[in-house]
Amino acid sequence: MISVPFKVLLALTVVCSLINPASAQQRQVTEVAPGVKKISIGQADKFSPYSFCDEKPQLAAMQQLPAAKLPFDINNIAVAITDRGVVVEVPLDGDEQLYGFGLQIGSFNQRGLRKKPIVNDNPSNDLGYTHGPTTFYVSNKGYGILVNTSRYTTFYCGSTSRNNGAVAAVKQTNGGNSVEDLYANRSGASGVVSADVPGAKGIEIYVFEGPDMLSAMQRYNLFSGGGALPAIWGLGVKYRVKADFKQDEVKKTAAYFRNNHIPVDVLGLEPRWQTTAYSCSYVWNKDFFPNPQNLIDSMKLQGYHINLWEHAFVNPASPLYEPLKNKSGNYLVWNGLVPDFANAATSKLFAGYHENTFIKQGISGFKMDECDNSNLSYGSATWSFPEHSRFPSGIDGEQMHQLFGLLYQKSIYNVYKQNNIRTYLDVRASSSFASSYPAALYSDTYEHDEYIRMVVNSGFSGMIWSPEVRESNTVKDLMRRSQTAVLSAQTLYNSWYLQNPPWLQINKEKNNHDELMADSKQIEADVRQLLNFRMSLLPYLYNAFAEYHFKGIPPFRALVMDYPNDEKVFGIWDEYMIGQGILAAPLTEKADQRKIYLPAGNWYDFNTGKKMEGGKEYTIQPTYTQLPIFIKEGTILPLAKPLEYVAPNSQFDITCYVYGDNAKGTLFEDDGITFNYEKGKYNSIGLSYENGKGKLNRKGSFGNKRYAIKKWEVVK
Amino acid sequence: MISVPFKVLLALTVVCSLINPASAQQRQVTEVAPGVKKISIGQADKFSPYSFCDEKPQLAAMQQLPAAKLPFDINNIAVAITDRGVVVEVPLDGDEQLYGFGLQIGSFNQRGLRKKPIVNDNPSNDLGYTHGPTTFYVSNKGYGILVNTSRYTTFYCGSTSRNNGAVAAVKQTNGGNSVEDLYANRSGASGVVSADVPGAKGIEIYVFEGPDMLSAMQRYNLFSGGGALPAIWGLGVKYRVKADFKQDEVKKTAAYFRNNHIPVDVLGLEPRWQTTAYSCSYVWNKDFFPNPQNLIDSMKLQGYHINLWEHAFVNPASPLYEPLKNKSGNYLVWNGLVPDFANAATSKLFAGYHENTFIKQGISGFKMDECDNSNLSYGSATWSFPEHSRFPSGIDGEQMHQLFGLLYQKSIYNVYKQNNIRTYLDVRASSSFASSYPAALYSDTYEHDEYIRMVVNSGFSGMIWSPEVRESNTVKDLMRRSQTAVLSAQTLYNSWYLQNPPWLQINKEKNNHDELMADSKQIEADVRQLLNFRMSLLPYLYNAFAEYHFKGIPPFRALVMDYPNDEKVFGIWDEYMIGQGILAAPLTEKADQRKIYLPAGNWYDFNTGKKMEGGKEYTIQPTYTQLPIFIKEGTILPLAKPLEYVAPNSQFDITCYVYGDNAKGTLFEDDGITFNYEKGKYNSIGLSYENGKGKLNRKGSFGNKRYAIKKWEVVK
Repeated sequence: MISVPFKVLLALTVVCSLINPASAQQRQVTEVAPGVKKISIGQADKFSPYSFCDEKPQLAAMQQLPAAKLPFDINNIAVAITDRGVVVEVPLDGDEQLYGFGLQIGSFNQRGLRKKPIVNDNPSNDLGYTHGPTTFYVSNKGYGILVNTSRYTTFYCGSTSRNNGAVAAVKQTNGGNSVEDLYANRSGASGVVSADVPGAKGIEIYVFEGPDMLSAMQRYNLFSGGGALPAIWGLGVKYRVKADFKQDEVKKTAAYFRNNHIPVDVLGLEPRWQTTAYSCSYVWNKDFFPNPQNLIDSMKLQGYHINLWEHAFVNPASPLYEPLKNKSGNYLVWNGLVPDFANAATSKLFAGYHENTFIKQGISGFKMDECDNSNLSYGSATWSFPEHSRFPSGIDGEQMHQLFGLLYQKSIYNVYKQNNIRTYLDVRASSSFASSYPAALYSDTYEHDEYIRMVVNSGFSGMIWSPEVRESNTVKDLMRRSQTAVLSAQTLYNSWYLQNPPWLQINKEKNNHDELMADSKQIEADVRQLLNFRMSLLPYLYNAFAEYHFKGIPPFRALVMDYPNDEKVFGIWDEYMIGQGILAAPLTEKADQRKIYLPAGNWYDFNTGKKMEGGKEYTIQPTYTQLPIFIKEGTILPLAKPLEYVAPNSQFDITCYVYGDNAKGTLFEDDGITFNYEKGKYNSIGLSYENGKGKLNRKGSFGNKRYAIKKWEVVK
Repeated sequence: MISVPFKVLLALTVVCSLINPASAQQRQVTEVAPGVKKISIGQADKFSPYSFCDEKPQLAAMQQLPAAKLPFDINNIAVAITDRGVVVEVPLDGDEQLYGFGLQIGSFNQRGLRKKPIVNDNPSNDLGYTHGPTTFYVSNKGYGILVNTSRYTTFYCGSTSRNNGAVAAVKQTNGGNSVEDLYANRSGASGVVSADVPGAKGIEIYVFEGPDMLSAMQRYNLFSGGGALPAIWGLGVKYRVKADFKQDEVKKTAAYFRNNHIPVDVLGLEPRWQTTAYSCSYVWNKDFFPNPQNLIDSMKLQGYHINLWEHAFVNPASPLYEPLKNKSGNYLVWNGLVPDFANAATSKLFAGYHENTFIKQGISGFKMDECDNSNLSYGSATWSFPEHSRFPSGIDGEQMHQLFGLLYQKSIYNVYKQNNIRTYLDVRASSSFASSYPAALYSDTYEHDEYIRMVVNSGFSGMIWSPEVRESNTVKDLMRRSQTAVLSAQTLYNSWYLQNPPWLQINKEKNNHDELMADSKQIEADVRQLLNFRMSLLPYLYNAFAEYHFKGIPPFRALVMDYPNDEKVFGIWDEYMIGQGILAAPLTEKADQRKIYLPAGNWYDFNTGKKMEGGKEYTIQPTYTQLPIFIKEGTILPLAKPLEYVAPNSQFDITCYVYGDNAKGTLFEDDGITFNYEKGKYNSIGLSYENGKGKLNRKGSFGNKRYAIKKWEVVK
């Protein structure tokens, strides 16, 4: 938690203008970082998301942002504390657009909706349930609001109107002839966003000022410690092998990739590497893996990193059980303890075991499963600890649910960091102020549209989303999903129930009977081409993550974040920016073509080099091996000769593609695997192209030149 | 509320055995009616469901039930009051089966599940959301538990296990190869049902004792005032006309039914009868209905009752607006006031207008729409008042949501009752202790399977469910849905967006263009046949409702309620009992045949008369005009010559079908339209068949013999 308030701006007794408060309360407004103000009123929760944020705000970077500005007086944010809890009301303009509430799966523009961002494993109804809830939203008017609570909170995003005498401008009707007519959203007339926080006795509200939407988002990420910078190999390809693979089968799969020149950096082991998985023992299953150290070492020689699946529910057979028995919640999950991660010593104990056992062995990361919750899961299953659970720290089950994934990834991340080893984790739940953790969220859901929407929404949440590829209905489905995976923060094939890679056989049953598709070699070649593109894009992507870390710019973000005043992008949930210059517009198996909208300026079709005018719609029809991306005029896109994996000393031979007459780009250069960049051991490489000539300007103290610009190619 | 406790059984300081309570609290156990005990602890909620139950418990009837028995010591129900709220824990046997939580749409046997019974208009995710939530469940071990709260409550039905040192008998696994394997419900090891009531400072728990499941359910219904007894005409057919029909079109439709001898008792008018409907003016729209009194009167002459659609959100243009302005919540819905129904005088004011305006005109009932809530509705619409709303009575929005439909139907029902007029209402939300209200729930959802499941679940909730027929995918769909409608508590065709009855054209667009199906006359004849059966069944059904009223026996109920020890019925959600002797097993359009299970005893196929041995499965394949029903041996099924509508003095010519050598039956005879039966003005008719001879035994003081037994027919 940030300890030194910048200055106390206001300390006054507020008569709330919008809410009749049960009692007028003393409230304080503090500037806690440049452009970040905190309103405190009443007795704030002990277990708030920010209370667990150990990362320091990146103050210097925040000072570089344009002068902070809020479109309304901060004192017009009203707070009422009643017997029921706390209600917050934030002013809202008639034409304002709202985004956020974490990794929302079913909705994008939240204006007019009611959202309850609650952590859940299968948020198939659009109530606001998500793997990664935040009580945070941003407005296209250039600010963000975070209600700092882990309690289940409901946001009414301009969907209410008040009985205060004034007749609201709601269309009156005597009903239509369809259900859709009847329930057409006649609300949105309200000039307010309300947040209902039952059970709270006070509240802290963080206000992230603009002046624009991207700046507000940058402030949020920088205040959270800066965006995550994964290990460079993490931006390659991750492949999770079948759950019942034994050591030799893992090696066989690894050999297949290398023999067929299919880029893969990380191999993931699924539940059965452990003696018991539901709940977890955290002990190697010697029947399946007789010599784990040998596996890890031999895989390392072939350039692989190993990632281990687990969850945090501790089996009685685990060496962690006895030490954690009295440091856990009063309910079990799958007969396993629920460690009290809200207690720092307990987190450390749990993570310390991982450090001494697995990180020492050379395990490069973990897939932290099941840390969300299940209100409804597959079939009739319900699991996880009840909301009324109690933990030794004093936190209850409800708040623990909202924070569990956050605290889990934090504790595992911290031991890597203490060892000066970078990682790229998988995690199934997260929360607010998580920007600094290099952990990609994933889901058992599998709607391709929803996966794309989550890539786009991830930019509003300080989270990383991994639209993994599993089985497919059709080859088209496989190829389009692979394209989306390549155009996302983590390219992951999750074959935990597939004997062979899905590109050899899309059908699960046939795949597991080793019946490969007739044209499997062609499909393999097509996938290889896509994955090679991923490896080419890696330096550009790595730079985008560096800008996430140092400047707070989300590497994947909605068009509205860059074009907050273009009303044509207010609802676009299926196109997004990657880094500064790439616009992606993924296709699904539903159609062979799609409409795209390009915002103001000029753009270039990456596949054809064709120049396209912005502010217009186009129809595109890319093949399976053509990625649906468009490059902004003025961009230098550095593409590398694809590697099969990134080794500690890998060099990248780069061709700079120049879009337009004058163009710029940057690259971030460091060892990619330690935190030495935090001590300044990195280079910033400026790329520019002017008057027909490309220039490279390398600044910094990192000695090893990993990037070699081999060629400049002008596209126009 | 019942005022005189029977006796205080216990008043002791309890050390809760299952929960470590924050503080030991004084608790009282009172027997409030025969076999109904109330546990009180801490400061109980003011706005609990029972606090609004004005109906008196049917004490005499309760005393007729078998001696009350609970399978565990009531003191083993543990309660903890903490900062978070209240947690209740009720003992649970290893093999116990649980049902209830109101009109659940997606689940039936609730054992092992987590359920949050929250009022909602579109509960498509199986979290427990429903139009008719109750905090009540029944066990096949013969008791029911009601947590008397209107707060959003979560029940963990044996889905948790405790970290208390004992290792629970949960299967340990190292994971399967499918998502289903992984999430297989490994829980259920817990010997407890927990209810989590956040925000409560104390609680009342009603325990409905057995000795068996049906007795417990009877006690619940009788304690709630006895089950509803609708006006006899309500058990005929209701037809809702297109929303934009004008007076003449309504008359035309009415004439069509009579000309074609299609039985219809009630015509429902949809939104546009009002000057403004979203929100409501409660004023006739003279453009559409220039002379409402003429319509009502002329329809009455043809035997029709008129039902008016409305909701409770009061438009500024309504005469009710000014009187209610300061008696409503602090938020509007569709710019309309939300009357504070928790205040008796406000309810009376609202209902009084209905009495003076509409009931006086001869309106026979209302469809009380939109009184649920919308967390997610069609598309992006969200509406209704927020959960943090405040009302003059002091109730908050959350509790008001849970109670709104209950209080709405109660206030409308009460004015009918005060006028000694019986009715049959439609309502879109209900709650606990609603058994006595003759109001059928309905939904905008339209899954036939779910509709059947709600018929079955209605028996655990003290509610009436109306699986209405709208458009259809296929003629098969129409016919199967019609069958289910005929075999339910209300037979309703809701053509609010259809120009013609759906049996003339299933397709919405064609229907509205008057393009009738080529075989529409044949389909019409088939539907007529089904509706005629409904009219034949009416005396039997009416008697089932009388048994609901006087004995608390749900007229529609799951097999498990009658056969609580037959494990083969524990999961059967698609077969149900109607009255004492009919088992229904509806089909949907999914298949032309289905499996049925018949419990112990002998049964007769209604269509063929074939005797079938119980305890076995059969496959049935009824045609569109054959109803999938089976008659229990020993039943006398009185079927009437079908009427086209039930007039005040209608006589029923009855044939008694006798199933088996010795058989019994009953009929309930009264005027069918007043509450005079409450003063004893009714006859109980005993039917018996022994030694080849049928006997009728009429007892009571109702003078008019409505039922004439014309014939006895033995089926064997």
